[in-house]
Amino acid sequence: MPASIVDHIKKRALAFFRDCRGSHDWSHTERVYNLCLRIGEQEHADLEVLRMAALLHDIGREQQDRSRGEICHAQVGARLAREILEQAGVAPDKIERVIHCIETHRFRGNLEPATTEAKVLFDADKLDSIGAVGIGRAFLFAGEVGAKLHNGGIDVRKTRRYSKEDTAYREFVVKLQEVKDRMLTEAGRSIAEERHRFMVAFFDRLHEEVEGRV
Amino acid sequence: MPASIVDHIKKRALAFFRDCRGSHDWSHTERVYNLCLRIGEQEHADLEVLRMAALLHDIGREQQDRSRGEICHAQVGARLAREILEQAGVAPDKIERVIHCIETHRFRGNLEPATTEAKVLFDADKLDSIGAVGIGRAFLFAGEVGAKLHNGGIDVRKTRRYSKEDTAYREFVVKLQEVKDRMLTEAGRSIAEERHRFMVAFFDRLHEEVEGRV
Repeated sequence: MPASIVDHIKKRALAFFRDCRGSHDWSHTERVYNLCLRIGEQEHADLEVLRMAALLHDIGREQQDRSRGEICHAQVGARLAREILEQAGVAPDKIERVIHCIETHRFRGNLEPATTEAKVLFDADKLDSIGAVGIGRAFLFAGEVGAKLHNGGIDVRKTRRYSKEDTAYREFVVKLQEVKDRMLTEAGRSIAEERHRFMVAFFDRLHEEVEGRV
Repeated sequence: MPASIVDHIKKRALAFFRDCRGSHDWSHTERVYNLCLRIGEQEHADLEVLRMAALLHDIGREQQDRSRGEICHAQVGARLAREILEQAGVAPDKIERVIHCIETHRFRGNLEPATTEAKVLFDADKLDSIGAVGIGRAFLFAGEVGAKLHNGGIDVRKTRRYSKEDTAYREFVVKLQEVKDRMLTEAGRSIAEERHRFMVAFFDRLHEEVEGRV
């Protein structure tokens, strides 16, 4: 596939990220793209399919945000991506393989990734929510929704997402600490375990500082 | 001084934090209070003065935010604090010592902390902007102003604060990494150096992850 097709798809994808928040902006797609290539090589995946899938995987995000979560960004993203890929003249069997990646990349989605490429995209996308990047994104997101720095001494599982009681630590407890156990590829799991350890150490330290122990 | 006076001052101070942002909310005052007691003990400071100063040090913050920075929160806070302390019946010489702490606690203020208590408050306040807490606050603040997660490959010193190009890393480069060299007490310096190392390691890791190296 000529590089110009990937460039074209990139331009089309980028247009969907004009009004998005910092915690889910185009730089997330760029990081996922790089991780996909890295993991994809180790897992002997079709990098052509992965390039297209990574660039397009979150183009439905803005519609999901505007609908307050009623629209699923993986579903609407897959529909939008099909149009772009058809217009770019990508071969039909490649399109189906890209679409499968996009449809199944969601953490709490109903569809399971069945191909190597879909598993790699799933892992890469989730990896960008943990480690130092994940910590930064969790606090950034808390700031975006007007939430707190930290909620000491309360059961964070009982607070609501998108509320003022939301915190990065709540996100860690209810979601981010599970990520390493959800990895679908060997290469993804190994990166996840290291990022997980870093995140645990960060929140341990945060608690010690909040309590004035260090 | 009876505990009831500290409780009364705490209640009056708390009332100034109703509409504040997560990055500068009441929990910041609580952490500064705890650090003041810890550092104050080591520095043989007057803990009574420190308790009052810590509780009241940021009560002018909301006015500064509303004035978009034209009003200095240390100056207006000192004025508001004087009223509260007089009404609580605190002895005049104690009031002067508390006021001096509040007036001189600002990082970029014109007045220098001259007493042990003022130096301890200055250090405690600045310590809460570094380490794991500082990292969290910097990303939270970036989220509050609609900024980005990260600005790779650009000179962050040339971006503006409060802009969409603002990032936690920019805050680290232009301000947070200097904090350890601004400490005024021995105990504060030792805590700062450890928190500084943690912060440097975090941003190193963030860069490695953003560039897809780990």
